Amino acid sequence: MTGELIEDFVAVKDEKEASQIYNKGCYGQPQSGGALKLSLIEAVYLFEAKRVEIKRKNRRMSFVQLFRYANKRYPDFEIRYIVYRDLRMRGYVVKPDIQPAHFRVFPRGGRPSKTPSRFWVLAASERGMFDLEDMVSQMRRVQKARKRLLIGIVDEEGDLTYYQARLMRPKGKVKPNDYEISADALFLGDRVLVLDSDEAETLHTTEFFGKFIGEGLQLSLLETAYLLEMGVIILRDAKTGRKIDLAQFTRKAKRIQPDFDTRLKVYKDLKSRGLIVKTGFKYGTHFRVYKGDPEKEHALYLVHAVSPAYHSTWPEISRAVRLAHGVKKELLLGRIVEKESEYIRLKRVRP
Amino acid sequence: MTGELIEDFVAVKDEKEASQIYNKGCYGQPQSGGALKLSLIEAVYLFEAKRVEIKRKNRRMSFVQLFRYANKRYPDFEIRYIVYRDLRMRGYVVKPDIQPAHFRVFPRGGRPSKTPSRFWVLAASERGMFDLEDMVSQMRRVQKARKRLLIGIVDEEGDLTYYQARLMRPKGKVKPNDYEISADALFLGDRVLVLDSDEAETLHTTEFFGKFIGEGLQLSLLETAYLLEMGVIILRDAKTGRKIDLAQFTRKAKRIQPDFDTRLKVYKDLKSRGLIVKTGFKYGTHFRVYKGDPEKEHALYLVHAVSPAYHSTWPEISRAVRLAHGVKKELLLGRIVEKESEYIRLKRVRP
Repeated sequence: MTGELIEDFVAVKDEKEASQIYNKGCYGQPQSGGALKLSLIEAVYLFEAKRVEIKRKNRRMSFVQLFRYANKRYPDFEIRYIVYRDLRMRGYVVKPDIQPAHFRVFPRGGRPSKTPSRFWVLAASERGMFDLEDMVSQMRRVQKARKRLLIGIVDEEGDLTYYQARLMRPKGKVKPNDYEISADALFLGDRVLVLDSDEAETLHTTEFFGKFIGEGLQLSLLETAYLLEMGVIILRDAKTGRKIDLAQFTRKAKRIQPDFDTRLKVYKDLKSRGLIVKTGFKYGTHFRVYKGDPEKEHALYLVHAVSPAYHSTWPEISRAVRLAHGVKKELLLGRIVEKESEYIRLKRVRP
Repeated sequence: MTGELIEDFVAVKDEKEASQIYNKGCYGQPQSGGALKLSLIEAVYLFEAKRVEIKRKNRRMSFVQLFRYANKRYPDFEIRYIVYRDLRMRGYVVKPDIQPAHFRVFPRGGRPSKTPSRFWVLAASERGMFDLEDMVSQMRRVQKARKRLLIGIVDEEGDLTYYQARLMRPKGKVKPNDYEISADALFLGDRVLVLDSDEAETLHTTEFFGKFIGEGLQLSLLETAYLLEMGVIILRDAKTGRKIDLAQFTRKAKRIQPDFDTRLKVYKDLKSRGLIVKTGFKYGTHFRVYKGDPEKEHALYLVHAVSPAYHSTWPEISRAVRLAHGVKKELLLGRIVEKESEYIRLKRVRP
């Protein structure tokens, strides 16, 4: 079977050939006269599979010529092709070039006009940037269409990894408590101790704040800021004995953790959702998040608090997702945009 | 039993009390007159364990007063104390304040003067920097003394994670080959294809270069630079057909991967050690490293190529180590200093 390369598509003009190609795999778009219009990516795939030959100005093209032609026309052709080819070889029916994703993917034997698509796929290079704002707006559009979004990342050697990305709303079981105490707490330079053992006990048993070190309850910087804002603790400097208010404390905390504000916003939002939040240091992330008692259950999520305009590289994202999976947790990126919170769940999947 | 706080130590003057404290746990340094000199960290621990009371200028101190005193004297006292306390509570005999580490650790019931120490420990805060140069020189001194180095990292909530750090020399089984081919290769903007199938086969079967995409062998940027330098491939631009030499290629590669030089140096060193090196993208690191055929065996190491003056934060390091463990590999940081290569293995351990 033969197709003719015309600019950015390939036309299969023989009616019988056109319908054979379309009927086995739904390649291309059938035209009114009986011909079939293949996109470049479909043509390259069918060429590689030896199902079509391609002519240009009546001369046969080699695979390498066609591949180079497509690469010249589309700078990211190869990346998209690797993803398209992989999905096709897994038996899916794949339709290229939709917005907001690159491909709509249908189950094996599905018909794009009749079967609902199984998921939408974006193709990206490992060298591309991960742009959160961009990703969120794509997720929104895909979720509005009630579809799943997969992102296929092509690495240096042409290997593929797929991530499922979605916006979600985490929820826990521990409502923030109204404390009727104002506990004395001591600022020790980079952490805080509550020394009265009854007050320490109250804070630890109701919302699992802090960690006991000897008889004192050690609070993290975030817990301290949270409890200061709630008026539950009175903070004093360990050296001078002077009182420290929330604004002063926040300034000190920023010197230790430059992204303290970003973390605190997400921390407060997670607390308001009834979740218990502990440091995620061991996992190289900001928070381990529990639905209930952290001493009785495992953390469900690892949450990374990010700024609204967060950028990262795909290897970084890959590492964080992989790590969360390794410990059977889900990775969430959390950000607060104005007063709205958004949590993006990223999950490695096999399509 | 009572000790007297004098500047940065506590003296137990009663001979009987001194020998009781020393005999059970080897705390302090026995003095010629029969008294015992406790360091502040030992005194705080024995106070918390209710084995001593502390007086200063004849007035009894509370635990909080002693703790605050020690924190004022030593800015990192609390971090060191948390590590010291943890090791003591695990039953080890711990001697503070040696160079290059912070503690020498002896097995339960050991005697510092008779028993060899089991390992040396450095205490660090999760908020401290990971400084590679510093770490390497500490590792060198500890390894020269034929000891193991552990690093105890204290997180925000006072939880502890221990890493074992050592310099090592990875070695593989696949000697670099002398090829008698000069294969044509095509530069496609961010990767390279070898199109002749015999040459592709040769490169892939001898040293497992590249990955087959259709009929072509796709080489990574590093493989391309390596093979160009060896004179095994002739590289041409896919658009213009013009030849590209090593210097030109390296310039192009740097535009895509700014740290290309650093990676290439480590890549070449790993190759010279008989190892097979593949991209570590899936794991968010630079390389997966195999001793032999990557299709038959699992990767042994995940290697991150770093600059000689590499700095990072502990949460970053923690994440990388944790990830490597999750997939049963060892994390190595590799750097080339002048012409010498160094590999630092970091491993999470329970002491």
